[in-house]
Amino acid sequence: MKLIRFGSVGEEKPGVQLENGTRLDVTEFITDYNEEFFGTDGIERLSEWLEKNERNCPIVSDDERLGSPLARPSKIVCVGLNYAQHAAESGMAVPKEPVLFFKATSAIVGPNDDLIIPKGSEKTDWEVELAIVIGKKASYVSEADAYDHIAGYVLHNDYSERAFQIEREGQWCKGKGCDTFAPIGPFIATTDEIKNPNALDLWLKLNGETVQQSSTSDFIFNVQEVVSYISQFMTLLPGDIISTGTPFGVGLGFNPPKYLKAGDVVELGIEGLGSSRQEAKAYKA
Amino acid sequence: MKLIRFGSVGEEKPGVQLENGTRLDVTEFITDYNEEFFGTDGIERLSEWLEKNERNCPIVSDDERLGSPLARPSKIVCVGLNYAQHAAESGMAVPKEPVLFFKATSAIVGPNDDLIIPKGSEKTDWEVELAIVIGKKASYVSEADAYDHIAGYVLHNDYSERAFQIEREGQWCKGKGCDTFAPIGPFIATTDEIKNPNALDLWLKLNGETVQQSSTSDFIFNVQEVVSYISQFMTLLPGDIISTGTPFGVGLGFNPPKYLKAGDVVELGIEGLGSSRQEAKAYKA
Repeated sequence: MKLIRFGSVGEEKPGVQLENGTRLDVTEFITDYNEEFFGTDGIERLSEWLEKNERNCPIVSDDERLGSPLARPSKIVCVGLNYAQHAAESGMAVPKEPVLFFKATSAIVGPNDDLIIPKGSEKTDWEVELAIVIGKKASYVSEADAYDHIAGYVLHNDYSERAFQIEREGQWCKGKGCDTFAPIGPFIATTDEIKNPNALDLWLKLNGETVQQSSTSDFIFNVQEVVSYISQFMTLLPGDIISTGTPFGVGLGFNPPKYLKAGDVVELGIEGLGSSRQEAKAYKA
Repeated sequence: MKLIRFGSVGEEKPGVQLENGTRLDVTEFITDYNEEFFGTDGIERLSEWLEKNERNCPIVSDDERLGSPLARPSKIVCVGLNYAQHAAESGMAVPKEPVLFFKATSAIVGPNDDLIIPKGSEKTDWEVELAIVIGKKASYVSEADAYDHIAGYVLHNDYSERAFQIEREGQWCKGKGCDTFAPIGPFIATTDEIKNPNALDLWLKLNGETVQQSSTSDFIFNVQEVVSYISQFMTLLPGDIISTGTPFGVGLGFNPPKYLKAGDVVELGIEGLGSSRQEAKAYKA
């Protein structure tokens, strides 16, 4: 099943996207895809409900804006440097265990919303990433059990301001949580749709030119390792997001580095998870 | 006004604490102290409502558990090394601009709940901190305007697992967001109660012995600087928490370092913000 949210900013409603691309409004069944939904077998309940009620669901117009396909989670945990070639281009060593950081959830926007380049930014960069959506509370989970705690997968562009992230006194969060820095979607693919999340092609184009092109089979730490690892340090709640890191090809790695400016168009996608598109705009008060 | 939340874990209700210590249930007026409450002049509305309805509010029994005095925020932004003497004891340089990191909001517990020492932890440490509660959305706010965006102040113990934080591959979040690592409360004091947040005594005792004793007048970056600074990198939402850093006297700074073990009792307080008490327990599955 493919879960979407549609409508204007802050007023998104839940829907599903069918195999043929048709989008259905499911607000008659559920008010939102949030912690309560994921934590109470919502996907299973929705699937059963759809079997009986699909024909009666209103169709969502193709003109409707897509929002993030899930409500604001308690946290976005990101894995840094999780592809060996990306660690090298960032000038950092391959980590012995996952590097973790948080992204402010206030950065979340819809998959095709504009990217706003922050005030004073000169080093705004892209990062295509596979994100995991947690389906069941996870605390001290083993790798063997990790999949039981996953609701699905979603495309995420982990935008990063490299000067804020690296040149402004320790810790990366300054350059990761700027508003609009987390376009999520177009849809969450539930786990039954993704046979092996550790072997998905992913790509990102800047103004039509491919700059990232890789596969999650190059992960240093795979999906089950990452879920298990994070759950040793904190409890993952239903609806939480784990972003698994980006492959080679970010702007920081170019020689000279290449950063986003107003008017640039970023498109990205992952096998089975659709694609998204953001246009960069300058910040205006 | 002093805002409290009381009741069992996950089912906390809003209340207020009067000058004489009496606690009143205000659920007739509001369901929770959350983003919507703070973002819609809730404090002012509650204050007006109380003038007329105080006498009819049910009294909360002294036996009732206190929860965190606000619902789960979108984020807890913490300032690291914000007192010069603490930076020195941590073996780190005084920062030129605020060091920021996030604490997982799943770590939040009530002010007197048990501290659970995580599985495998040998270096769980304490940190008494003044926390700011955001009252109004803050993006690119000047220092001069910062106070307009503050709803109040609250006591926070920023528990930290030093091995997870420092010895486990980059970024501090691994050692900051363990469950129960953010006891918040007893109450939020609204801004009218705290004349100068940059001149408050704060202290922490371990098993009755004072280990931290300082004043927020020793801040490297004061309240208005911190709010303004963070808002340059991300939008602070109503109900978000900023924890302003801890003074000298954490376990890491002792020679040899001193860490928490099951049975230890930590008490802490800030002038005008009351006190809290946590007993350390070992993790049990």
